[in-house]
Amino acid sequence: MSTGFFDGIDKIAYEGPDSTNPLAFRHYNPDEMVMGKRMEDHLRFAVAYWHSFAWEGGDPFGGQTFIRPWHPQDDMGRAKLKADVAFEMFDLLGAPFFCWHDADIRPEQGNYADNLRTLEEITDYIGEKMQGSDTGLLWGTANMFAHRRWMSGASTNPDPDVFAFSAATVKGCLDATHKLGGRNYVLWGGREGYETLLNTDLGQELDHMGRFLSMVVDYKHKIGFKGQILVEPKPQEPSKHQYDFDVATCIGFLRKYGLESEVKLNIEQGHAILAGHSFEHELALAASEGMLGSIDMNRNDYQSGWDTDQFPNNTPEVALAYYHILKSGGFTTGGTNFDAKLRRQSLDPQDLIAAHVGGMDICARGLKAAAAMVEDGGLETALADRYAGWQSDAAQQMLNSDLGSIAARVLSEGINPEPRSGRQEILENYVNRFV
Amino acid sequence: MSTGFFDGIDKIAYEGPDSTNPLAFRHYNPDEMVMGKRMEDHLRFAVAYWHSFAWEGGDPFGGQTFIRPWHPQDDMGRAKLKADVAFEMFDLLGAPFFCWHDADIRPEQGNYADNLRTLEEITDYIGEKMQGSDTGLLWGTANMFAHRRWMSGASTNPDPDVFAFSAATVKGCLDATHKLGGRNYVLWGGREGYETLLNTDLGQELDHMGRFLSMVVDYKHKIGFKGQILVEPKPQEPSKHQYDFDVATCIGFLRKYGLESEVKLNIEQGHAILAGHSFEHELALAASEGMLGSIDMNRNDYQSGWDTDQFPNNTPEVALAYYHILKSGGFTTGGTNFDAKLRRQSLDPQDLIAAHVGGMDICARGLKAAAAMVEDGGLETALADRYAGWQSDAAQQMLNSDLGSIAARVLSEGINPEPRSGRQEILENYVNRFV
Amino acid sequence: MSTGFFDGIDKIAYEGPDSTNPLAFRHYNPDEMVMGKRMEDHLRFAVAYWHSFAWEGGDPFGGQTFIRPWHPQDDMGRAKLKADVAFEMFDLLGAPFFCWHDADIRPEQGNYADNLRTLEEITDYIGEKMQGSDTGLLWGTANMFAHRRWMSGASTNPDPDVFAFSAATVKGCLDATHKLGGRNYVLWGGREGYETLLNTDLGQELDHMGRFLSMVVDYKHKIGFKGQILVEPKPQEPSKHQYDFDVATCIGFLRKYGLESEVKLNIEQGHAILAGHSFEHELALAASEGMLGSIDMNRNDYQSGWDTDQFPNNTPEVALAYYHILKSGGFTTGGTNFDAKLRRQSLDPQDLIAAHVGGMDICARGLKAAAAMVEDGGLETALADRYAGWQSDAAQQMLNSDLGSIAARVLSEGINPEPRSGRQEILENYVNRFV
Amino acid sequence: MSTGFFDGIDKIAYEGPDSTNPLAFRHYNPDEMVMGKRMEDHLRFAVAYWHSFAWEGGDPFGGQTFIRPWHPQDDMGRAKLKADVAFEMFDLLGAPFFCWHDADIRPEQGNYADNLRTLEEITDYIGEKMQGSDTGLLWGTANMFAHRRWMSGASTNPDPDVFAFSAATVKGCLDATHKLGGRNYVLWGGREGYETLLNTDLGQELDHMGRFLSMVVDYKHKIGFKGQILVEPKPQEPSKHQYDFDVATCIGFLRKYGLESEVKLNIEQGHAILAGHSFEHELALAASEGMLGSIDMNRNDYQSGWDTDQFPNNTPEVALAYYHILKSGGFTTGGTNFDAKLRRQSLDPQDLIAAHVGGMDICARGLKAAAAMVEDGGLETALADRYAGWQSDAAQQMLNSDLGSIAARVLSEGINPEPRSGRQEILENYVNRFV
Repeated sequence: MSTGFFDGIDKIAYEGPDSTNPLAFRHYNPDEMVMGKRMEDHLRFAVAYWHSFAWEGGDPFGGQTFIRPWHPQDDMGRAKLKADVAFEMFDLLGAPFFCWHDADIRPEQGNYADNLRTLEEITDYIGEKMQGSDTGLLWGTANMFAHRRWMSGASTNPDPDVFAFSAATVKGCLDATHKLGGRNYVLWGGREGYETLLNTDLGQELDHMGRFLSMVVDYKHKIGFKGQILVEPKPQEPSKHQYDFDVATCIGFLRKYGLESEVKLNIEQGHAILAGHSFEHELALAASEGMLGSIDMNRNDYQSGWDTDQFPNNTPEVALAYYHILKSGGFTTGGTNFDAKLRRQSLDPQDLIAAHVGGMDICARGLKAAAAMVEDGGLETALADRYAGWQSDAAQQMLNSDLGSIAARVLSEGINPEPRSGRQEILENYVNRFV
Repeated sequence: MSTGFFDGIDKIAYEGPDSTNPLAFRHYNPDEMVMGKRMEDHLRFAVAYWHSFAWEGGDPFGGQTFIRPWHPQDDMGRAKLKADVAFEMFDLLGAPFFCWHDADIRPEQGNYADNLRTLEEITDYIGEKMQGSDTGLLWGTANMFAHRRWMSGASTNPDPDVFAFSAATVKGCLDATHKLGGRNYVLWGGREGYETLLNTDLGQELDHMGRFLSMVVDYKHKIGFKGQILVEPKPQEPSKHQYDFDVATCIGFLRKYGLESEVKLNIEQGHAILAGHSFEHELALAASEGMLGSIDMNRNDYQSGWDTDQFPNNTPEVALAYYHILKSGGFTTGGTNFDAKLRRQSLDPQDLIAAHVGGMDICARGLKAAAAMVEDGGLETALADRYAGWQSDAAQQMLNSDLGSIAARVLSEGINPEPRSGRQEILENYVNRFV
Repeated sequence: MSTGFFDGIDKIAYEGPDSTNPLAFRHYNPDEMVMGKRMEDHLRFAVAYWHSFAWEGGDPFGGQTFIRPWHPQDDMGRAKLKADVAFEMFDLLGAPFFCWHDADIRPEQGNYADNLRTLEEITDYIGEKMQGSDTGLLWGTANMFAHRRWMSGASTNPDPDVFAFSAATVKGCLDATHKLGGRNYVLWGGREGYETLLNTDLGQELDHMGRFLSMVVDYKHKIGFKGQILVEPKPQEPSKHQYDFDVATCIGFLRKYGLESEVKLNIEQGHAILAGHSFEHELALAASEGMLGSIDMNRNDYQSGWDTDQFPNNTPEVALAYYHILKSGGFTTGGTNFDAKLRRQSLDPQDLIAAHVGGMDICARGLKAAAAMVEDGGLETALADRYAGWQSDAAQQMLNSDLGSIAARVLSEGINPEPRSGRQEILENYVNRFV
Repeated sequence: MSTGFFDGIDKIAYEGPDSTNPLAFRHYNPDEMVMGKRMEDHLRFAVAYWHSFAWEGGDPFGGQTFIRPWHPQDDMGRAKLKADVAFEMFDLLGAPFFCWHDADIRPEQGNYADNLRTLEEITDYIGEKMQGSDTGLLWGTANMFAHRRWMSGASTNPDPDVFAFSAATVKGCLDATHKLGGRNYVLWGGREGYETLLNTDLGQELDHMGRFLSMVVDYKHKIGFKGQILVEPKPQEPSKHQYDFDVATCIGFLRKYGLESEVKLNIEQGHAILAGHSFEHELALAASEGMLGSIDMNRNDYQSGWDTDQFPNNTPEVALAYYHILKSGGFTTGGTNFDAKLRRQSLDPQDLIAAHVGGMDICARGLKAAAAMVEDGGLETALADRYAGWQSDAAQQMLNSDLGSIAARVLSEGINPEPRSGRQEILENYVNRFV
């Protein structure tokens, strides 16, 4: 029996590029084959429970704008109603996955025992709903930043009791993710960082964070969870500085603590932007290290210095992101999680559906453009040409030699390299043939 | 015999805080003891040859504003005149050190053999001047970003011949640095990065950069150079993305290529700012890893998104930087290099001297404030209090346990941590007692 | 009878620069004479009700951290308790002024009639407290951004009913400000702007905003309110774009709608930073147009792209701000309002007091340094020298001539100007003698 | 007779969207009718002489990368060769317009008389070339920022002789623009601003700038120049702060000095971004005031804090810009000037052509998408719906009433507005149907 929340909205169908129906897919066609694989299996879309169902429309200067039947969110009965509506939306969209924090799906209880009990209850309830649904769990995670107990960090907290509470919380969330067949488990350290160095022992905190992550990995193996552990880079906000600043920082951290083969990255467009990088930079860097796990797809206003978490709407940008994903072999356990929220003025249920439809369509356009570029091979050919000199034996021998012998050769051969065009505009024009 | 360039300016003397003489030190008093060491030996000031003598006042929208007797800089005779003036300034300031790029001290010749020959000639000339001077060489480096041959990178260039030219160039510069008794050798990769990922194989370029740095380390040992090899983080500019983005990225890179015990960091205030960090963050992070080598002291306009390289003028900021340097044990081979340039409207020789005097005074004030904070111990005490919980055996046992046992304890003991004030404003007020 | 909230904290006394008492003034000495006026009368400090008493410590990623006896803030009885505590703090600090939004002092009632009624009740209550207090009202204002009714703007809302509700709300707040003897009335248009141009008629909204402000001015005259009407620039946040972007934009707006002689500006350090300006730029620009009214003193993290509203802690920056205020003649109706909030980890009542004490001390240091620079006259002399050429009759005649005659003179006289040093570093060093 | 510079490149032809020829138009089809007007007449493309022919590939960290037959640019013979090549490119592209600074087309001579004489000579030469060409002059301008005489400003210089030199220079450039039939004359004040307020009298400088612009307007009328005078906003770079910060600032300035009916704006995408605005914001704001004159089309890297002046390559962004241009009635005297430069690694003549071809194609795609949105009317309809309430007599009466009567009505009618969805995502999806 329907909750009625989406009354008047039918299951979203693919109607093709010429459709003017705002609640139809114009580009996302799940069964369409792209490079030998169904589009749905490439993109692996997930709905984020927090933005779509837990966030109430507040911002730093204003309160709740949304009015939903599951408000206020302090009651297990309404938590179940919220889950009912969520699964109705997953079904309307044909979303193959969703993602949650513990705090999204059950009300905060103020203590660990009750948090755990209600988490188990709601994940049992959700598990039953999944039985009758085509929607799986892309990943679960623990919200260790919202409640005041985490104000000074979770695993990096100066208080060992908070470390303990954090460890227990992740255990519960990992158990629940395992129970629901989650493909991954994510850690985002929103308060793992500092507000001021004046009160912070950065070295000790990093060591604690490394140790904590090792425990998570050990526990995963202990319970037989086959999903991928992911950490998620973000430079700041809410903290002044967050330790998982960007992909390079996370990889350095994982290598320092010997976790580089156990943990991969969940990379978000908005977080890349906030760190001063393009999304494709972060993807390419992670891919080059074999650590590209999953993505949080959204869009950040380049000119607002905070996390705007908007639905993606720019095909050229999205196409370059999927180009790097396809080049790295595509998703395995990962997927495309919409870590995107409605603008707070978008009050209606229809807005919630339309935002996802638009985002899914943009991703589908991007994927198809990316696949066309991969298949055409123009970028790869240009790259191979540019680096062709390194294919020679002489070049490889030089790489394995030493400064002295190279300098001697430069002198004896009078090596005086002449620069060649980087052809950036021509390559940008090439990309514009596909997007 | 004087060049006459600084005619009318006498050796800068310490006159104390009440002096109104714009060409006197009010705070920098080289022999004054600070925490048991002479102020000069703490700060280890260096003048940067490039900004003070090679830069002609141009910016992206305008050409040369300075008119100097050693212009145009395309002649070895005038290169020696430039060196004469430089050593006059070192002497006027009582600067214990200076730093150079090859391209600052000899004109670019357009080929390696002549670049090397003129480098040897000018460093012999400089070496003679050093004999009669109290100024030593803090570090030398190769400018591998200005000439068009480096437009697509040095060690990361798609053309192996540029890699070869780079290797030969660094060999020559390292030899010259060694000859002049340099305390360190620095690599800054201004073009080691990319303009667009469309034409870049990021993974291959990083491997080449790692290999190159290994060769530099090997060569250092081969010739018996005892100085420290340093790399210098900067996020971008001139490149869109530079591989040595920030301290965390550099440390991750060094660890990946097995160089973490051979190479330290030369950290610049302006580069920290451009990467989205505070200077003290970068210093503290490097110190926590034992990789704090030397600093490029300047100031970046927080609101200009390029490298403004201004002389430092804000004591509170500088004090926090030296606080982290003192806490890490102070400089060994490193020092305080003024990687700062005059504003291009500051045309007069007096401006050049006054800018350094002001910068040295600000650093001296910062150092004294930092030392006072270290000696007072207020920040350390507050830190120890905040993390005191971790001193217990139970806390340390927990760190070595696992999620399951911790969760069991949280349940059994009903652990429910109550947050404690972070006291940021009180600590900031504390700092303001000293600055 | 005391509420007990600040138990253990005595009235803050001036103890001089050597005091190590964290709850004493080291620089702020209200009766000390600065340039012939009491320090208190120069600085005219105000406590901001919203940050200190209404904000509960939430941020975009976390909820309330503070636990106060007047929580939850939905009850008139607790609103009065909050006022009691506020006046206790005003008294402890010796704060000559405070400022409020309607929403800070009375709970939102959900409709205009009850909002007005409770506003009248609480302002009567506050008025009584002011009788027994040395603290006056610097300004009042209406919060027209927090409640969901304002989500699409107040005077610029597409819905005329919101315009009406806004007009009624400002009427009520202006009446209450008048009743309490407010020195100014402020309008900050946090939602007067847009999220997306796609749904916005920018020209119409600006016209409505201009008309609204004219009505406010008319009403002020009608009721005989002698205070100054102020608008407050901010570029964005919460909106993507706010119409009162910066000082220049506000002045242009006031001139367009014929309000330039009726309205001045309330300028905030943090908002200046967010708009890409220095605080002193905004002050100097407003002063040059005779529109510098009052200031919101705080500090914005230059590297966090949102409004961080920290207490000021950098004397050199604050000194330059007060230098421009003093040069413009000092405050008349305006003052120094601490639009600054505790960090959300600063939980204790002592933090609240210490933050203000530190901020007041920094401002006092800044004021004294600024006054010393004004009295020394070094900057003014340098300025006069630099522009001296414009004092000649020939220069003034040229200003009143035309391109043709000037060009003829350039040719006939062979005018070929030689640049002179701008002496920036020397002037910066000069400032550092005073801060 | 051809210079041979573009040997091997034929006149660029329209080949349609499926063409894979990198030197063909795929979207720009000059004669194609869009909303009843030829595409060429809508877009009015101009090539910028400075980036394409005068810039040599330098950046702040490196020198010239391009090697052109007209280098070095210090000789009138080579200036004519440069003009020959320029007109060859205009012809290859079918560019209807070009733009210049005096310093682009003739070598700097170091004094006014010779600058004027060589400007007259080269503009005579260019005028002859225009006789045999389809390319007209969109606008001319004076470069008053590159030579050291302008280092402290042109019309805002502390030295009246520089003001005089500037006036004479603009007279010469305006005469030359008039002679060549220029459609507009532009002033961009790259050094009209300051590096530090410490040495700046902001109010006096603004008055001088206002007076200068009035003289320019007067002179235009005196000589019968029918073109439009345009000023160009930019917030900073090269100066720390530029007086023509953004569109709102320029409009406020023009209104203050009574020039709002004489001067319009030349708006650049990159400058908009640097000022914290979207391009469409700046266009919409100027349009709402009737001051949208012309555009400098380029693209700024959102994450590089300087003017990157890249060729546009993102259709969705460009489409929204042209949407506002079309809604304002389209260009009259103005046009689309490519103020865009090659990346400095793009060395080849082919790169120069391809960059323009790509940029023209992107603009054509954008224009067609914009026109389709205008013709479809979906955005206008949504806008009309959203603001429909203001069409009522009651709403208009309210606008002309006063706070008191509105408040009375809010009370008596119990007005309590209920927010309605802003539908941002739905509108963004709508736009994506067209781009």
